[in-house]
Amino acid sequence: MKKIITISREFGSGGRTIGKIVADQLGYAFYDKELIEKVAEKTGFSPSYIKERGEYSPSASAFSYSFMGRSHDGLSTDDYLFSVQRKIILDLAEKGDCVIVGRCADYILRDRADTMNVFIHADKKKRAERIVKVYGASPVKPEKRLDDKDKKRRVNYKYYTDRDWGDYHNYDISLDSGTIGLERCADIICQLARAE
Amino acid sequence: MKKIITISREFGSGGRTIGKIVADQLGYAFYDKELIEKVAEKTGFSPSYIKERGEYSPSASAFSYSFMGRSHDGLSTDDYLFSVQRKIILDLAEKGDCVIVGRCADYILRDRADTMNVFIHADKKKRAERIVKVYGASPVKPEKRLDDKDKKRRVNYKYYTDRDWGDYHNYDISLDSGTIGLERCADIICQLARAE
Repeated sequence: MKKIITISREFGSGGRTIGKIVADQLGYAFYDKELIEKVAEKTGFSPSYIKERGEYSPSASAFSYSFMGRSHDGLSTDDYLFSVQRKIILDLAEKGDCVIVGRCADYILRDRADTMNVFIHADKKKRAERIVKVYGASPVKPEKRLDDKDKKRRVNYKYYTDRDWGDYHNYDISLDSGTIGLERCADIICQLARAE
Repeated sequence: MKKIITISREFGSGGRTIGKIVADQLGYAFYDKELIEKVAEKTGFSPSYIKERGEYSPSASAFSYSFMGRSHDGLSTDDYLFSVQRKIILDLAEKGDCVIVGRCADYILRDRADTMNVFIHADKKKRAERIVKVYGASPVKPEKRLDDKDKKRRVNYKYYTDRDWGDYHNYDISLDSGTIGLERCADIICQLARAE
């Protein structure tokens, strides 16, 4: 039985939804927004600020570093947020039985044998349709929104882990939610989590 | 129901064995050695030569090109072998209900909606143990054997497909056979193949 499931996902692939279904089916805690709230509580930053920075830094890292005047033990704001987030993820993992979405959790928990790492992706056309359906239309073309968000996730992951986001070496399983379907992806993950 | 399953695999990951189990469970034809024999029949080259070149060219492509003196419609030997192999894979896919291991089959059949593409990998330590067990010891260190073989597969795949071997975009599912186990990998693939 895997006590912790990390889900990394391309924007618009439905990885968050799959994580929620898995958590419900296994009776596990689900950390996505909850994680943001914990970081907010700990740091005093607003949840919306953390949502924006927690996975999408450090594109403006140098800026925030100078702007904040090294007020966090000599760390830039992004690095400080990452360190708090990292500590919270390690604590949550100690409690066990949880699904954690994004936030480099696969890397942060890489030394735990009771963790299963999942990557969810889908082709761009399907993801573009999904984000318009789920998040609504925007003046920015959906393909551009996908590229921007994935690029930020990729850069953020590389910066904090020195690994390549989406690289198969980092995951027990990678699934194309576009061809397989969200429900079926969740079923497979649950099966694997339950296996000895 | 997916009528064709392609399996790409890191050397030593047990991808071939998984493919065989899947083929047996689904009652599908299994093409690995069989494919080599068909190419041999068609070209007159020896099966052992094709085994070596079919996935591990074109490291010596320029050499074989000049050496063979453009005897294959102006193609180098490697390109000629690839073109024969490609044609055979397209023909086999037409017949349907089969598992094809390696040989860029995922790329060659990319336009068929009835194809499921699988990538099998495992960490180097587990693969090193496995190749010594399956193929026997060798004066060359197992880690070196893995690197050499995977490098050749990567270069061959890139040359003929212009895509990156192992890149998640190319597969419906990627599985770590080291953490999941060969039998369980095969079960998941069969489940997905059977799904509507």
